[in-house]
Amino acid sequence: MELLKKLCTIHAPSGNERNMTSFVLEYIEKEKANWKIQPKIITGEQFQDCIMLVFGKPRTAVFAHLDSIGFMVRYGKQLIKIGGPDIETGYELIGEDSQGKIACKLVVDEETGELSYDFEREIERGTELVFKPDFRETEESVQCCYMDNRLGVWNVLKLAETLENGIIAFSCWEEHGGGSVRYLAKHIYETYGVKQALISDITWVTEGVEAGKGVAISLRDSLIPRRSFVMKIVEIAKNSGIPFQLEVESAGGSDGKELQHSDIPWDWCFIGAPEDNVHSPNELVNKADIQAMTEMYKVLLKEL
Amino acid sequence: MELLKKLCTIHAPSGNERNMTSFVLEYIEKEKANWKIQPKIITGEQFQDCIMLVFGKPRTAVFAHLDSIGFMVRYGKQLIKIGGPDIETGYELIGEDSQGKIACKLVVDEETGELSYDFEREIERGTELVFKPDFRETEESVQCCYMDNRLGVWNVLKLAETLENGIIAFSCWEEHGGGSVRYLAKHIYETYGVKQALISDITWVTEGVEAGKGVAISLRDSLIPRRSFVMKIVEIAKNSGIPFQLEVESAGGSDGKELQHSDIPWDWCFIGAPEDNVHSPNELVNKADIQAMTEMYKVLLKEL
Amino acid sequence: MELLKKLCTIHAPSGNERNMTSFVLEYIEKEKANWKIQPKIITGEQFQDCIMLVFGKPRTAVFAHLDSIGFMVRYGKQLIKIGGPDIETGYELIGEDSQGKIACKLVVDEETGELSYDFEREIERGTELVFKPDFRETEESVQCCYMDNRLGVWNVLKLAETLENGIIAFSCWEEHGGGSVRYLAKHIYETYGVKQALISDITWVTEGVEAGKGVAISLRDSLIPRRSFVMKIVEIAKNSGIPFQLEVESAGGSDGKELQHSDIPWDWCFIGAPEDNVHSPNELVNKADIQAMTEMYKVLLKEL
Repeated sequence: MELLKKLCTIHAPSGNERNMTSFVLEYIEKEKANWKIQPKIITGEQFQDCIMLVFGKPRTAVFAHLDSIGFMVRYGKQLIKIGGPDIETGYELIGEDSQGKIACKLVVDEETGELSYDFEREIERGTELVFKPDFRETEESVQCCYMDNRLGVWNVLKLAETLENGIIAFSCWEEHGGGSVRYLAKHIYETYGVKQALISDITWVTEGVEAGKGVAISLRDSLIPRRSFVMKIVEIAKNSGIPFQLEVESAGGSDGKELQHSDIPWDWCFIGAPEDNVHSPNELVNKADIQAMTEMYKVLLKEL
Repeated sequence: MELLKKLCTIHAPSGNERNMTSFVLEYIEKEKANWKIQPKIITGEQFQDCIMLVFGKPRTAVFAHLDSIGFMVRYGKQLIKIGGPDIETGYELIGEDSQGKIACKLVVDEETGELSYDFEREIERGTELVFKPDFRETEESVQCCYMDNRLGVWNVLKLAETLENGIIAFSCWEEHGGGSVRYLAKHIYETYGVKQALISDITWVTEGVEAGKGVAISLRDSLIPRRSFVMKIVEIAKNSGIPFQLEVESAGGSDGKELQHSDIPWDWCFIGAPEDNVHSPNELVNKADIQAMTEMYKVLLKEL
Repeated sequence: MELLKKLCTIHAPSGNERNMTSFVLEYIEKEKANWKIQPKIITGEQFQDCIMLVFGKPRTAVFAHLDSIGFMVRYGKQLIKIGGPDIETGYELIGEDSQGKIACKLVVDEETGELSYDFEREIERGTELVFKPDFRETEESVQCCYMDNRLGVWNVLKLAETLENGIIAFSCWEEHGGGSVRYLAKHIYETYGVKQALISDITWVTEGVEAGKGVAISLRDSLIPRRSFVMKIVEIAKNSGIPFQLEVESAGGSDGKELQHSDIPWDWCFIGAPEDNVHSPNELVNKADIQAMTEMYKVLLKEL
């Protein structure tokens, strides 16, 4: 899983995804010759830091977000959040400002909950800090910060190898308020007439969704996708023999939110492996669930 | 009010409106021969489970949502909400899973507020439950679950009988995050140039809006529609002689929210009868207010 | 600063901006002969109460909102908020209903926080009340209600005098839920291909942004604009020699929010002078910061 390990080290908090964009574009250029089908690569200023790959005659689009959670330096030693990172005093953070590289520690004030950093000098206002990656792999699992969503990106890059018909869209800002999926969705719908979407992202281990029990297919999170579409997916999943679990939550959101609220009649479904230690430096995912995720996407892109 | 009674029995929680869609389409097919004008019926996959009726040369669109609130089975005996239902231990819920029909009771944990069901067996994950309908009619009022918004649907089906120029749009997901009004609005604006909207929905009896005092015209809820439009409606209402009440609230929302936030310059106004026992199995509406609502829509569709 | 003083007296709470619209249109008609370039003036029912001015070959659009915060009469003596006004018993409020002009006082219930008014008669339901303007000018500062955003409007009217290429858009509803920026943005993008935006609005004096230290360039508020764009602006600002301060906040929003969430790939940045006594009748802004704001906009519209 060298590709996944590499992806986890790239600095790309929400709003500043361009390092991931560059890496993914270079990876595609290098690898695509080995893919079954050569996709059309859509990129450029008109799509900010997003990328779309169009394979064959697409019926379904898969969205995977490039950005990660993190922190931003406010004033003095203060930090504010980018997205919703887990917070714990001692978490190692890295970044860079005009004075050089930064490796510091997160400090959470026990009384006020306010965030700051512990570093030898003051860091420049507006500097982004992210978790320091510590990639750990066993026979059973992978663990690092940013499995969410480098694993979702990894999943679609695997999918690309054999994909014949479909669209892969790499989005931005998912962890912090959204802002790119609507124009991607508009381009996809208006150009290809595609209105079926799968969200390639990582979900949570909960009392109902366990590690090692298969990829999660979400019937809902804070929003409820169209039932006839998600039940169609569940039927395909049942027939596939690939291990999966149904997720039913009242909280959480994804790129699906922007599809739901767009002026296009999208059907969408979140499908992803569950992780433990959500949004921390220690996000843990079972390898069998990753395999199920990748296999499920292959089947669904064929059968939907 | 046999039609209203029938509408109240149809299972159609947000995201799964297709039973209502089928019923309304069949009703239209059966009844439209008696209508003054034959509308164009717009439906199909491009509009998911929504329906639009276009009469003559429309200047105004009326939106009525098809969906209802309800509950969904999470894990084990847990329930989560669809929309914002009132909760009380003992409320009767009905639904169906692959093992058969379900009639069970809502249980609210007094300490945690957590929801579960009381039933002889475990219900399958993701199953939707809705209030068991108990339609009660007196000379003065009608009472059942889901007056909101089966009465709003009923109102536009009455309006359809004599409507000469206008659009009726049946929307989905209103009770849970929205998701259909934007593409309906886009189609309406781009095809017919219509940008005036009325929201045919049910509001709340409050200290300022009383049962039996007429249909409520809302000057605002959590959002503020354009004042020049709502004041124009108030003028027409005053001249009509039909009983009405002005509503001014800081909370609540409707399909108007999606119109307000769209990229189309919609003028919109919420107009509906008030109900007591909001979002419970016992929603109570005064018949005189229903009559005022239907009459007001007839006048407004002519004069706006 | 007679123009600013005049702007502060105009009644235009969110949803009812037409007095500002009329005033600004008349001002433009009267003054434009003195401007370097004659803009195209875009207005009319298709844009509700908004106005757009198009100068030369635009690359950047500047948004300034016309509306203000205020209060609305609910039932009896109750008031509810329009936007997020500061509340304090004794604040003077003015308005008008069908019985005549109103000058009354705000009353905040110390226990419940509920709002009401102190006036000799009952005010009609739905009547809007705004802060009574008390314009105070010294050598160093200007102070009044509604610096936010009459100063943002004033800034773009100054900018218009010498602007050669660019768009100025006057928006509505910014203080209360938004609702106009998306259709303005759509028109701008589809007609002129412009996707760079600056938000001409007033921000807050905080521990990191001080009065008299220059115009604030916001790296983020509750949303995070695309970093490559805001850093490009910071570079231009550094080279300009004009005093500025970097703002980094986790809360707050602006017209930028609607751009971020639109289906257009907008790059946007909030740039404005900071004020003290936010959203009160006593909003205080340093004149040097206003000057820096106006100069910064001139430079940016040339160099972006």
